[in-house]
Amino acid sequence: MSTPASFQSACPFPIENYPQILLAHGGGGRLMHQLIQRMILPAFKNPWLDAQHDASVIEPGGSRLAFTTDSYVVRPMFFPGGDVGSLAVHGTVNDLAMAGAKPLYLSAGLIIEEGLPMETLWKILSSMQRAAQAAGVQIVTGDTKVVDRGKGDGVYINTAGIGVVEHSLSITPTSVRPGDVVLVSGDLGRHGIAIMAVREGLEFDTVIESDSAPLAAPVLALVEKGVEIHCLRDITRGGLTSVLNEIAEGAGHPIHIEETQVPIREDVRAACEILGLDPLQVACEGRMVAVVPEREVERVLDLWRGFGVSAGAAVIGRVAEKGTARVLIRSAIGAQRILEMGSGEQLPRIC
Amino acid sequence: MSTPASFQSACPFPIENYPQILLAHGGGGRLMHQLIQRMILPAFKNPWLDAQHDASVIEPGGSRLAFTTDSYVVRPMFFPGGDVGSLAVHGTVNDLAMAGAKPLYLSAGLIIEEGLPMETLWKILSSMQRAAQAAGVQIVTGDTKVVDRGKGDGVYINTAGIGVVEHSLSITPTSVRPGDVVLVSGDLGRHGIAIMAVREGLEFDTVIESDSAPLAAPVLALVEKGVEIHCLRDITRGGLTSVLNEIAEGAGHPIHIEETQVPIREDVRAACEILGLDPLQVACEGRMVAVVPEREVERVLDLWRGFGVSAGAAVIGRVAEKGTARVLIRSAIGAQRILEMGSGEQLPRIC
Repeated sequence: MSTPASFQSACPFPIENYPQILLAHGGGGRLMHQLIQRMILPAFKNPWLDAQHDASVIEPGGSRLAFTTDSYVVRPMFFPGGDVGSLAVHGTVNDLAMAGAKPLYLSAGLIIEEGLPMETLWKILSSMQRAAQAAGVQIVTGDTKVVDRGKGDGVYINTAGIGVVEHSLSITPTSVRPGDVVLVSGDLGRHGIAIMAVREGLEFDTVIESDSAPLAAPVLALVEKGVEIHCLRDITRGGLTSVLNEIAEGAGHPIHIEETQVPIREDVRAACEILGLDPLQVACEGRMVAVVPEREVERVLDLWRGFGVSAGAAVIGRVAEKGTARVLIRSAIGAQRILEMGSGEQLPRIC
Repeated sequence: MSTPASFQSACPFPIENYPQILLAHGGGGRLMHQLIQRMILPAFKNPWLDAQHDASVIEPGGSRLAFTTDSYVVRPMFFPGGDVGSLAVHGTVNDLAMAGAKPLYLSAGLIIEEGLPMETLWKILSSMQRAAQAAGVQIVTGDTKVVDRGKGDGVYINTAGIGVVEHSLSITPTSVRPGDVVLVSGDLGRHGIAIMAVREGLEFDTVIESDSAPLAAPVLALVEKGVEIHCLRDITRGGLTSVLNEIAEGAGHPIHIEETQVPIREDVRAACEILGLDPLQVACEGRMVAVVPEREVERVLDLWRGFGVSAGAAVIGRVAEKGTARVLIRSAIGAQRILEMGSGEQLPRIC
C-alpha cells in the first residue's frame, strides 16, 4: 500500500464500539450523526463542512453559490409517487433551496449493476429529465460506471447541484433566536410510508403516494419578498425528529413542539401504527421546516399556501429561551416529553 | 407506478441488441460511447452535455466555472500508488483541469456497504484529504449512504468538482486544426497495470505503481503563460485509444500517431504482454493528451518538464487535413493501421 499507517492521524471515531459500518450509519439518526461528527468532519475539517448545511455556500470567481451532493440508493427503485430518478433530482434541488439558492445545474453520476434491463435505465433517465425540467434545472455533466452483478442493486444515482444565492441572509441554525416560530410546509411522512408499504406488501384503501417534490419555488418566494428566514431544512432521513434536533443543537436553544399541530394524514398515521413506526421519524422528500421571527409567520403561511407543494403549511412550535438545547413535544393531553433522535435503524435506504 | 409508459418518449438506444447493461458499458470503449450517445445524451439533451467535455463550463451568478462529476468503483480499493480515495480526488480534479480550470471545491458522496471495517473507511477518508490538500481543493459538502451487505462492494465514492475558468480559450475537440501537434504528458498505462497486477496476483521485480496524480499544475502553467491550447483530455478508461478517437471524431480530422514516440515503460509493456492487454487501451489516472498549434510545442514541453507529473512529456503525432476522422498509427517498421476504439471489455472497474 502506498500510505504507511504512521502517516495517518488517529481516528477520532470510537471504532471499538462500532468496528464495522451498520445500515443505521446511513439512517439519518444518532449513529449517522456520530459517524459524520467524529469521522467525516474531522477527516476533511474546513469551515464549509463544519457549518453542516444541507448545501455549502461558496464564492468562486466572484459569484455566490450553493453547492451540494447526495447519492440515492432507495429501494424499491420505483414507488408510488416517484422513482430513484425523480428523487435524485428533487433531493438535490431541495438541498440547494434550503440555502435559499435558486437551483440551476445538476451533475448525474450513475453506478449501474451489470444485468440491469436497458428499459429500466431509460425509464429512470426519462424520469430524471422530467423532474429536472419541472424544477428548472439542467443536468450538465455526468458519469456512468458499471459494477459486477451482485456488487450493486440496480442503479445508484449521485447528483451534485449548483444554485445561485441572491440574498444576504444567513440561513442556518445559528441564526435561530428565542421566540422564533417553527413551521412545516405540509403533512409529514408520506415518502417513507410509500416506500415501506411497497417493501412490506401492505395494501390500503387508497395508495399512499410519496411527497417527493421540488421545494425551490416556495423558498424563493420568501426570498423574493424579503422574508427574514432564520433557518430552513428539508425533512428527509430521520424525519422531523432529526431536523428539529439538529436545529436545536445548532441554535443552542430548546424547541417546543405541539404534537396536535403537526400535520400527519390519517392514512399515514394508520400505516405507521401497522408498521410500528413513529411518524415523527419517517422521511419526507418534499417537506421542509422553516424557523422565522414571529412577525414573519403570516407572510410565510400566505406565500406558502400559494404553492401546491406547501399548501398544507402549519405552525408547529416555537424556540424557547431557557433550558437545554433539545426538542420538547407536548401531546394532546398536555404531557411533555423529550423528542430524541432515533438510532437510524427504522428506515434503511429510504432515499 | 407514477409514470405511465405512454408519457415516455421512445428510447433511441438499440435495446434489442443490448437488452441489459454489460460490464463493458462502463469500460470507456465503444459500448460505453454508444450508451452515452444514444441513451444518456438524448435523455438529458442540452448544449452542455452535447459538448461532451470532461467538465462543463457554466456561468452562474456572473462567474465562469467548470463543473464535473465522476463515481469511483475501482477494485481493489487499495493498490500500489493509491486507493479509491486518492483516485476520487485526482480524477475529478483532472477533469476540471481539462477545461483549463483551477480546481477549487469538491463534493464527496459515499455509498458504503454494510460491514465495511471502520478502519478501512478512515484510511480512505484520510487518503482523500491528503490528496485534496496536495491538489489545493477543499471538500466542502458530502453525503453518506449505507447499502445492505451484498448490495455494494466496500465503498463507492462520487466526487463532483467546481473550478474557476480564468481564460477565454475554447479547449475542445472542435478547436483542433489540421497541422496541430499531439502530445502526451508522460508514460502510459501504469494505473491500469498496477490494478490488474493486484487482481491477477502478478509479481514483478519492482512493483508497478499507479500514475494517479493531479494534473492541474501543468495545465494552469500553460494557461498562465498564454499558450494557445486547442484541446486537452486526460487519459482514463479506454486509454490513449479512446481519447484520440474522441478528439478525431469531435475535430472532424484524422490524427496520425507514431507508435515509437508513445512513451510506455518496459515493465508496463512486459506486463501488458503477460496480461494480453494493448497498452494503448490501458487507463492512466495522471496523464493527459494536449493538442496545440505547432508553434506552441516547445513551450508546452518546456513548461511541462518543470513538473514531476509531466516530466516525461512527448510529442506523439499530428492532426492531418485530409481523410476520414479517425486515428492512424504507424509502427516501428513503417506499417500504418487504424487505431480503433475497443469494446471496453478489457479492463472493467479500473477507476
